[in-house]
Amino acid sequence: MNVMLSATLAANEDIERRRRAGERVLHLAFGEAGLPVHPALRERLAAASEHNGYGPVAGFAPLREAAAGYWGRRGLPTDPDLVVCGPGSKPLLYGLLLAIGGDVVLPMPSWVSYAAQADLVGARPLPVPAPPGEGGVPDPDRVASAVLHARAQGRDVRSILLTLPDNPTGTMASAATVTRLAGIARDLGLTIISDEIYRDLLHDPATGFVSPADLAPERTVITSGLSKSLALGGWRIGVARLPSVELRDRLLAVASEIWSSPAAPVQRAAAYAYTEPAEVVERIDLSRRLHGTVARAVHDRLTGAGVRVAAPLGGFYLYPDFTGHDFATSAELATALLDRHGVGVLPGHVFGDDARALRVRVATSLLYGETTELRLTALHAPDPLRLPWIAAALDHLSEALTGLEGVRRAPGGRRVSGAVPSPVTG
Amino acid sequence: MNVMLSATLAANEDIERRRRAGERVLHLAFGEAGLPVHPALRERLAAASEHNGYGPVAGFAPLREAAAGYWGRRGLPTDPDLVVCGPGSKPLLYGLLLAIGGDVVLPMPSWVSYAAQADLVGARPLPVPAPPGEGGVPDPDRVASAVLHARAQGRDVRSILLTLPDNPTGTMASAATVTRLAGIARDLGLTIISDEIYRDLLHDPATGFVSPADLAPERTVITSGLSKSLALGGWRIGVARLPSVELRDRLLAVASEIWSSPAAPVQRAAAYAYTEPAEVVERIDLSRRLHGTVARAVHDRLTGAGVRVAAPLGGFYLYPDFTGHDFATSAELATALLDRHGVGVLPGHVFGDDARALRVRVATSLLYGETTELRLTALHAPDPLRLPWIAAALDHLSEALTGLEGVRRAPGGRRVSGAVPSPVTG
Repeated sequence: MNVMLSATLAANEDIERRRRAGERVLHLAFGEAGLPVHPALRERLAAASEHNGYGPVAGFAPLREAAAGYWGRRGLPTDPDLVVCGPGSKPLLYGLLLAIGGDVVLPMPSWVSYAAQADLVGARPLPVPAPPGEGGVPDPDRVASAVLHARAQGRDVRSILLTLPDNPTGTMASAATVTRLAGIARDLGLTIISDEIYRDLLHDPATGFVSPADLAPERTVITSGLSKSLALGGWRIGVARLPSVELRDRLLAVASEIWSSPAAPVQRAAAYAYTEPAEVVERIDLSRRLHGTVARAVHDRLTGAGVRVAAPLGGFYLYPDFTGHDFATSAELATALLDRHGVGVLPGHVFGDDARALRVRVATSLLYGETTELRLTALHAPDPLRLPWIAAALDHLSEALTGLEGVRRAPGGRRVSGAVPSPVTG
Repeated sequence: MNVMLSATLAANEDIERRRRAGERVLHLAFGEAGLPVHPALRERLAAASEHNGYGPVAGFAPLREAAAGYWGRRGLPTDPDLVVCGPGSKPLLYGLLLAIGGDVVLPMPSWVSYAAQADLVGARPLPVPAPPGEGGVPDPDRVASAVLHARAQGRDVRSILLTLPDNPTGTMASAATVTRLAGIARDLGLTIISDEIYRDLLHDPATGFVSPADLAPERTVITSGLSKSLALGGWRIGVARLPSVELRDRLLAVASEIWSSPAAPVQRAAAYAYTEPAEVVERIDLSRRLHGTVARAVHDRLTGAGVRVAAPLGGFYLYPDFTGHDFATSAELATALLDRHGVGVLPGHVFGDDARALRVRVATSLLYGETTELRLTALHAPDPLRLPWIAAALDHLSEALTGLEGVRRAPGGRRVSGAVPSPVTG
């Protein structure tokens, strides 16, 4: 068993400790949405505080109906009986890996917990690189050859996991790639698990979104939740849309023995959110705008410093590539950024990337302010980049990038002496 | 993988369906505490509704400190850093089986989810009968021989699970048995998982309670929660007290990949409850009294009808033995009770008992009333047995027991014709 604490959570706890100890740390390491709870949801939670029964394992019926409506409004008519709620989309993903069984194809890089969960259920992940600029979806042609090769060796590959839009890269696979992938999954008889928790945070709502459930509905599970779009990570609520009664029943069997149900008052508040009343839609619109604005500003700072990075299209992540800097691994780069420049990021290797590739994940959602008041100000600001705390955070990043210039690799491969002369420690 | 929905939850959902369809069903099948949330906890939940961060995997520090204080007041000084909170004690138990690894010794009978969880993590349970009248603790002598035998066959047995007080039997192992078991666990190098979720519901607070953590602190994990003592099952909050940093870290690694943390507002309300303020202590005292009074009344009805059953000492369960009735299995008996007499119970076989032993679990906690108002009336009544809805429920049970007399087995083994002439269907 892999006994590492989830890398994101461990990094977050480390950064929190440094901050409590008085260090000035720019927190770009954690995928928390960084915004307050909408007051209407707080009211719903409070009003539901009397509910203390376990309730159905699949979730409170009005929540399943509301989630079905949510998908229906996105072109995916959904039977509420094929919706399963869980305490976050993370447990649902874990339960699905256990319920489906066999090995799973993962995009490389991909969210840290997929591979860790596969390890816990005794599955071996089959990492397949995403096409350039289309993070979250394994390259369809490579999927076919990887699966056929693994099967020829006796491995039982049963599923493939996608992230749309992607964590860690903040990019989005094209409709063409998703379409090719759905066809290949069908040819290979793979169940598709489509993690769409960032769907409502595509920065430009006009960007088309194609779910594999649109193309291969008979084999696609969608997982989602309110952790990102409504910043309810700590409330622990997720939903899954199952393609069949069989897989639903297997998931419920797992759910009933591991988590029983999400917290009952949270389910009631979530049921309200999934009906998408105007106030909730407006909140998500504002959040999407803020996430996009800040992620693009970070993109500009990175590219301005000569760092290669794909433009972010959804969520609150970027995945810059520091090739050319004199570090042996992404871990060494991340450590230098934290220890020398007070910038916390996650090294690409925790997402399954090549440890020697100098890529790190930058999460931009904790830049909006330290208090509810500052975060609300950022949410409603016509130009959030002009708010002093956000401007200061961006400048902190720029300084760090300038400092890193000191460890650019010389053409001959020797470290160029610069602003930061001390040796890099890993 | 075992793909059955947890038997208790499935039975509960079936009974709820029958009730909605207008059937008169006495609900004795589900281990929900059947009481309302204390208003002080509702207020705490509402006041904590702004908290939406994931927080530490181990749980909000004040909750860990309060849980440590709870154990400290029970003679078990506890380091808050060795407390791990989870969304219920069920996920904590699952996480522990995964973190400890290997096979697990279970009492027979025992709570349905232990064996199902072992199955999900790929462990094989080693069922060992509890000594007569001491449910929840496998017979210590038999444990030694079963473990040595299994190890001789190459099995890797690493842990033993106890329930103090017990579900399904409502009984309590003696201090002498727990002491012998702790010694044997030490001799065999087994980690003890002591499920003490019913500890505060021992009917007589003067009954001594010996935890294996008192005797073998270096190897005992205690799991507990607020689902039973404070009827917060649907809020999903549990706590574990770990014996070592190593096991805590392994549990946290599992927790971080499966559930992250319990719902943040629930953690804050639970932190208040675990400080044991007077109003919460009084609520638990009243609950304990009501559970004991009703469980003893059901005991009287059963023994009055000639059914053998151990006197309940804690929680809200009894485990009567209908030997002598003409049913082939406990499942057949449970079906007859539900279909003919409108009494929902769980057959002993779902707790790992011999399918042909005519034992069923009777849960008495859903007799207190259908509404919050009735339940509060029961909680505060000087003599809850005189409340019309509780008296009617007990009479319904007595009628069912009288009806069952019709299928007493004749000495020669032929079914005696009686009040219910139709054949028993399984």
